[in-house]
Amino acid sequence: MASSKTAPPLTEPGDASFDRWLDQQRRRHHYAVRRAPLDTLPGWRFCRDTGDLVHSSGRFFSVSGLRTTTDFGTDGQRPHTWTQPVIVQREVGLLGMLLKESGGEVHCLLQAKMEPGNLNGLQLSPTVQATRSNFTGVHRGRPVPYTEYFTGDRRGGRVLADSLQSEQGWWFLHKRNRNVVVMTDDDVPALDGFRWLSLRQVGALLLRDHLVNMDSRTVLSALPPQQLARRGGQPAPVGEDDAQHSFAEVLSVLADARFRYELTQEQLPLREVLEDATSAWGRTRDAIGRRDGRHFTVLGVTVEAQAREVARWSQPLLAPVAGLAGLLVRRIDGLPHVLLRARVEAGSLNVAEFGPTVQCSTRHLHGRGAHRPEFLDTLLAPRAGRVLFDTEQSEEGGRFHHAVTRNLIVELAGDDEVAGAGTHELPPDFCWVSVPQAQALLRHGNYLNVQARCLMTALTLATR
Amino acid sequence: MASSKTAPPLTEPGDASFDRWLDQQRRRHHYAVRRAPLDTLPGWRFCRDTGDLVHSSGRFFSVSGLRTTTDFGTDGQRPHTWTQPVIVQREVGLLGMLLKESGGEVHCLLQAKMEPGNLNGLQLSPTVQATRSNFTGVHRGRPVPYTEYFTGDRRGGRVLADSLQSEQGWWFLHKRNRNVVVMTDDDVPALDGFRWLSLRQVGALLLRDHLVNMDSRTVLSALPPQQLARRGGQPAPVGEDDAQHSFAEVLSVLADARFRYELTQEQLPLREVLEDATSAWGRTRDAIGRRDGRHFTVLGVTVEAQAREVARWSQPLLAPVAGLAGLLVRRIDGLPHVLLRARVEAGSLNVAEFGPTVQCSTRHLHGRGAHRPEFLDTLLAPRAGRVLFDTEQSEEGGRFHHAVTRNLIVELAGDDEVAGAGTHELPPDFCWVSVPQAQALLRHGNYLNVQARCLMTALTLATR
Repeated sequence: MASSKTAPPLTEPGDASFDRWLDQQRRRHHYAVRRAPLDTLPGWRFCRDTGDLVHSSGRFFSVSGLRTTTDFGTDGQRPHTWTQPVIVQREVGLLGMLLKESGGEVHCLLQAKMEPGNLNGLQLSPTVQATRSNFTGVHRGRPVPYTEYFTGDRRGGRVLADSLQSEQGWWFLHKRNRNVVVMTDDDVPALDGFRWLSLRQVGALLLRDHLVNMDSRTVLSALPPQQLARRGGQPAPVGEDDAQHSFAEVLSVLADARFRYELTQEQLPLREVLEDATSAWGRTRDAIGRRDGRHFTVLGVTVEAQAREVARWSQPLLAPVAGLAGLLVRRIDGLPHVLLRARVEAGSLNVAEFGPTVQCSTRHLHGRGAHRPEFLDTLLAPRAGRVLFDTEQSEEGGRFHHAVTRNLIVELAGDDEVAGAGTHELPPDFCWVSVPQAQALLRHGNYLNVQARCLMTALTLATR
Repeated sequence: MASSKTAPPLTEPGDASFDRWLDQQRRRHHYAVRRAPLDTLPGWRFCRDTGDLVHSSGRFFSVSGLRTTTDFGTDGQRPHTWTQPVIVQREVGLLGMLLKESGGEVHCLLQAKMEPGNLNGLQLSPTVQATRSNFTGVHRGRPVPYTEYFTGDRRGGRVLADSLQSEQGWWFLHKRNRNVVVMTDDDVPALDGFRWLSLRQVGALLLRDHLVNMDSRTVLSALPPQQLARRGGQPAPVGEDDAQHSFAEVLSVLADARFRYELTQEQLPLREVLEDATSAWGRTRDAIGRRDGRHFTVLGVTVEAQAREVARWSQPLLAPVAGLAGLLVRRIDGLPHVLLRARVEAGSLNVAEFGPTVQCSTRHLHGRGAHRPEFLDTLLAPRAGRVLFDTEQSEEGGRFHHAVTRNLIVELAGDDEVAGAGTHELPPDFCWVSVPQAQALLRHGNYLNVQARCLMTALTLATR
């Protein structure tokens, strides 16, 4: 990397210094994001044949249609079929986090980065956050810094984690991002806009709303337990004997869901979704959405930015209704366990992944009976327990507009057994998984969905 | 399971008893498989719209078309696009192996089973080998025995391994089979056609050609190392420190291939493949194949069987040219390693999986220069080393007709370094993986393809 700068000290004196830096970054990065009608977005067009919203280069991503049939969530009744718009992005993206040990603490190199869908401008993204187009130059922008640590022979670093992970299965079809964590011993300077932060600092920043972006949260979930041992001492190895279930049994819960549930996915022209008389989806000049306002809208923005790889661009964004992702935690024989649920999502690559205990849109908060998600009441008002984490976090601002998810982690006390979250006789697809087992799952792709991964990062970095 | 029989002794006196039993099974299972033209196969028809070959129930599987674009195997040149017929089977199948310890040895319950594509009639299949249709009764045949150990609450057994694995990526689009290994303490009688065999016996039977079927070989690859310790002593845990690469580095080789290679798959009407003027594929009344005879043919058979769930049925089978799957093995610092290669296949679910060192059709044996697979010469004529395993095995007889693959395992001596199979400076996508690391990969789905899995079973059960 060409840089004449000297590496700044790795250990930050405190949050005040960070806040001054973040303010400085916010002042220096001028940008404007303006709504623009979808049918006038420069570089984008509705394909004549399919009605899909595509980029003129044929790359990046498109908004297409999806017909899904599944018996998940039907309580054993007949499979349910529906159509919806969906983002199709065939290219695998790369999220890379560079780590370095200094002063006995692990630090990671984050970037204050503007994304057009962010509700607050800058958020902290991983060291590298790029599509393959960034590498091949289709963006025709500046080269992405620090990529040499994440591709090719990875000079100067050793890989700690590397897997392809899914992203929001209700909004993307078969989306995969490569999540890579690399440890270096090099003296790597933080370029303008970048900053080394200790895992302890990142943990503190996770307690603020909408600051550590989704890409950082997902890639940090892959941190091996050895790197997480910031509270002193080494973590235990995967506790086959101490956990509620063997690791094979945990894997079996997911394999069983992948075997048992039907999931048929057919990408279809967006036109067919919008012209489907039984569908609630429609298109105005400005946007694509539902008459009942549910799920999400697709809208367009034009961006002018000074400090991004291209100075001006336009793109569609998916604007979802607000969501809730909640995780129940409890100690079983002294070992912390999380309650995961195998879930089928419309765009899942491999039928099902483990999601958090509860994952829903906020309209479900008012649902009753069969429409009320299991364990929602326990999560919102545990009879015996305490709230470990409760913040609002953003979904990825490069694709989603003001996408807000409340991230909630609640630890149950032993005597909340009666609330239905006991260790035995759970509803189908739920499983108490020990934290070391969950960390072992996180080494591999397509086991935990993005909501569960982000909650695991919050649990391991921001709670005690 | 309703059975009035008493469980036979688990430990077999020797191979002579097995051979008598197998001969008896062969005599008792009368069946006839006859070629039949595709357009007269009862229950099957070419779909009017698409030209796909489908079952009248709409289930089981279909022969459809696939257009693939990938830059894998192009040496960095432009991506290559082609069309081909492909088997589409959306349903996840189940392969279940029931284990029991007896006399200090692990035994598994195998079935002598006829499949229409077998070149020798009966082969040894896992305890349960079934599609989901078998469970739901679409076959309208007898219920599949022993399924209670593999579904639901798995009364009487504990799961040791459970994952969804791919099958032949050049012949199937996104095929997945659930591979389940369950250990029981029950006294489980072997029904007629079934037999308990020790892992030692299975290892000996693997040395015979075409006897242990593909489904048994893939599901046995998931056996945890603890169950493989038949030569005394416990196996070492995954040797992070002893192996050539860390486990994270091994995972990274595959993640890198999944990121780096383009793979676009479009299922298309079989009609378009057959009518594509640039395609070598065509259809006669009897079969679908290529004018140059390469790759495979799709043909039809009619089966009459006495001891299978349905007495008479017809189906298409894919008849491939003969193949070679070869694995190089070497000790690095005393620990055995296998040379795996990340491979993109036309029907891969997740871009790439690890295959064996060499995987090719036998016509490649005569290729030269760039058409000669890497390490083929080392495998066929190692300058210093020994052949550990060399048999002909069958691919799955329920879908493939007389599909023969030579399975070859060669252990290199240390001084064969110069043959290009050294521990450093391998060609892209190759990686020396320690045997414990490969066994750790085998706990999870979509890491090792079916050829690599079957070779791992041969390596761990049938070589010393």
